[in-house]
Amino acid sequence: MRVRAAVAWEAKKPLTIEMVDLEGPKAGEVLVEIMATGICHTDAYTLSGLDSEGKFPAILGHEGAGIVREVGAGVTSVKPGDHVIPLYTPECRECKTCLSHRSNLCTSIRSTQGQGLMPDGTSRFSQAGRDVFHYMGCSTFSNFTVLPEIAVAKVRQDAPFDKICYIGCGVTTGIGAVIYTAKVWPGANVAVFGLGGIGLNVIQGARMVGADKIIGVDINPAKQEMARKFGMTHFVNPKEVGNDKVVQAIVDITGGGADFSFDATGNTEVMRQALECCHRGWGESIIIGVAEAGKEISTRPFQLVTGRVWRGTAFGGARGRTDVPKIVDWYMEGKIDIDSLITHTMPLEDINKGFDLMHEGKSIRSVVLY
Amino acid sequence: MRVRAAVAWEAKKPLTIEMVDLEGPKAGEVLVEIMATGICHTDAYTLSGLDSEGKFPAILGHEGAGIVREVGAGVTSVKPGDHVIPLYTPECRECKTCLSHRSNLCTSIRSTQGQGLMPDGTSRFSQAGRDVFHYMGCSTFSNFTVLPEIAVAKVRQDAPFDKICYIGCGVTTGIGAVIYTAKVWPGANVAVFGLGGIGLNVIQGARMVGADKIIGVDINPAKQEMARKFGMTHFVNPKEVGNDKVVQAIVDITGGGADFSFDATGNTEVMRQALECCHRGWGESIIIGVAEAGKEISTRPFQLVTGRVWRGTAFGGARGRTDVPKIVDWYMEGKIDIDSLITHTMPLEDINKGFDLMHEGKSIRSVVLY
Repeated sequence: MRVRAAVAWEAKKPLTIEMVDLEGPKAGEVLVEIMATGICHTDAYTLSGLDSEGKFPAILGHEGAGIVREVGAGVTSVKPGDHVIPLYTPECRECKTCLSHRSNLCTSIRSTQGQGLMPDGTSRFSQAGRDVFHYMGCSTFSNFTVLPEIAVAKVRQDAPFDKICYIGCGVTTGIGAVIYTAKVWPGANVAVFGLGGIGLNVIQGARMVGADKIIGVDINPAKQEMARKFGMTHFVNPKEVGNDKVVQAIVDITGGGADFSFDATGNTEVMRQALECCHRGWGESIIIGVAEAGKEISTRPFQLVTGRVWRGTAFGGARGRTDVPKIVDWYMEGKIDIDSLITHTMPLEDINKGFDLMHEGKSIRSVVLY
Repeated sequence: MRVRAAVAWEAKKPLTIEMVDLEGPKAGEVLVEIMATGICHTDAYTLSGLDSEGKFPAILGHEGAGIVREVGAGVTSVKPGDHVIPLYTPECRECKTCLSHRSNLCTSIRSTQGQGLMPDGTSRFSQAGRDVFHYMGCSTFSNFTVLPEIAVAKVRQDAPFDKICYIGCGVTTGIGAVIYTAKVWPGANVAVFGLGGIGLNVIQGARMVGADKIIGVDINPAKQEMARKFGMTHFVNPKEVGNDKVVQAIVDITGGGADFSFDATGNTEVMRQALECCHRGWGESIIIGVAEAGKEISTRPFQLVTGRVWRGTAFGGARGRTDVPKIVDWYMEGKIDIDSLITHTMPLEDINKGFDLMHEGKSIRSVVLY
């Protein structure tokens, strides 16, 4: 079939909107009509050419929501008409990692997904006979895409696509880091470094589970207002207190240190502060942000020997097919706010404007409506 | 009273055996006759002058066992005649940390202990009117010592002092790291870096809880024999496989990486290997070794984002008064071996020989018998 997509032909070039050929779903695959998709920093990172795994030409996008239109042989968990969110972290429930029950990082299709291909080693997208690569197993910058059955989360039908698409990445990453990775307990003190989209979702996740003090850290004081709306109780601006005083400021506010801290900046120096502001004995720091290639984190081992714990999270530790539908429920029940985070919407034709808004820091999240 | 002690008058000098004055126990304190004490690397570290917290003159020693001879006002948990192990990590059961139930790092007497003083801010030891400092709240290199009630673990009376003294530090540090900090599960694959006394105790802890593969890593192949006796199933010698291949060797042996790894070397480069040999998704690395002052650990944050966890342990995460008596029971029940680890015994007069044996790598543990 012919589909309408934003194609990334090469790094550092704007996407071009065009008609592309899409093969139908093979065994174990589903055809999904994408109704809405967010534009995420990770798409921009790959488009910048810095992503060593990035392949071109490709159809980017990994934060979508849509409707199953056709299923391949053997597909049993979804049927045409089901509403789904594509999953860049699939959940096969059969691999060593899924069966470990200790991690969400399903490995069943990792190698082909990393190569921009479907599990059988081929692409469904092509243009004038030339293969176009899939991206993160999703390629939501196309009005139709094909996904493995294990890479779609079936969600309720009354949830609006233009909002729940954000659950496909940013919302789940932030809220999941709190709930699934850190397992923040009621009454815990939490510090969040970086008050962009991920940081705001960490904050509302912490509020949802009953955290006590929720401290936001950002060098931009303009971030305060939205963060307070999402549950932030204290604000620390490194430019005001001094960058070398940030840890002490958090220790002072919490009376000893944060029970949990989250890095949502990707800056390795900030990651160190996030660890060291944790409470002696038990404080845990969770790295969410993706660091620049080659950058390393460091600390004195004494920080760990005296009880702090350093961990990270990907897709918020969420098992996609199991947990994403629950997060959709939480949104529909009003437990979390997504609407305020979606600052811009646009048709596919204007998708490059969405990237511009992100680079200019003018948007929290832009969503493309098909 | 007059007591017989090995006194450290200044850094880098041998200890001298002499009679010292000891005041009796004040309120909340107990007088303990020390029957045996191990000589630990930490004593040597402080004696070397590198320990920034080290104070002189002091009576070192923190790995002892003995008998309560007198109790001060208000002491209720032990009485004269009770057998006890002194605790450099006390357990008050009242401070924020003890009540958190999340850490063994009781803070109730930390500040005075770090200054070489009893909780009231004074020393019980003196020599010709000059104060001599306590050490790690224990000072077991004296045939009598005074300790806070919260810093002694009451143990069964049929356990031999010359063996259980080692539970006061090394045994508990290694076994506790497995049981209390890592919570190694039956069937887990474990890697242990450094096959000295701590590493051997990690190994037997892992065996005790039913670990599957137990991989020892050491540059000295002579360590293999004892390690296999304690439960090691595989040996990796960095000098044989190449230091840059150690991680891959462990990943190969375990089919993906260690579920738990332990650093018992204190070398920060080894700590990095220990982290990176852990299984993607859930592997946890525990730092036991104390690093040189100023040294830092580093890794790419990607290691944590893909699910590895970095933590540390002090006194094996054991709550002294609660857990040390259990470890004494395990020894008496034959679940763990201590006898093989105590390679030398000597009278107090020969304590400097014990330090020499340790520096020369000829002993696993030397024990002074009073």
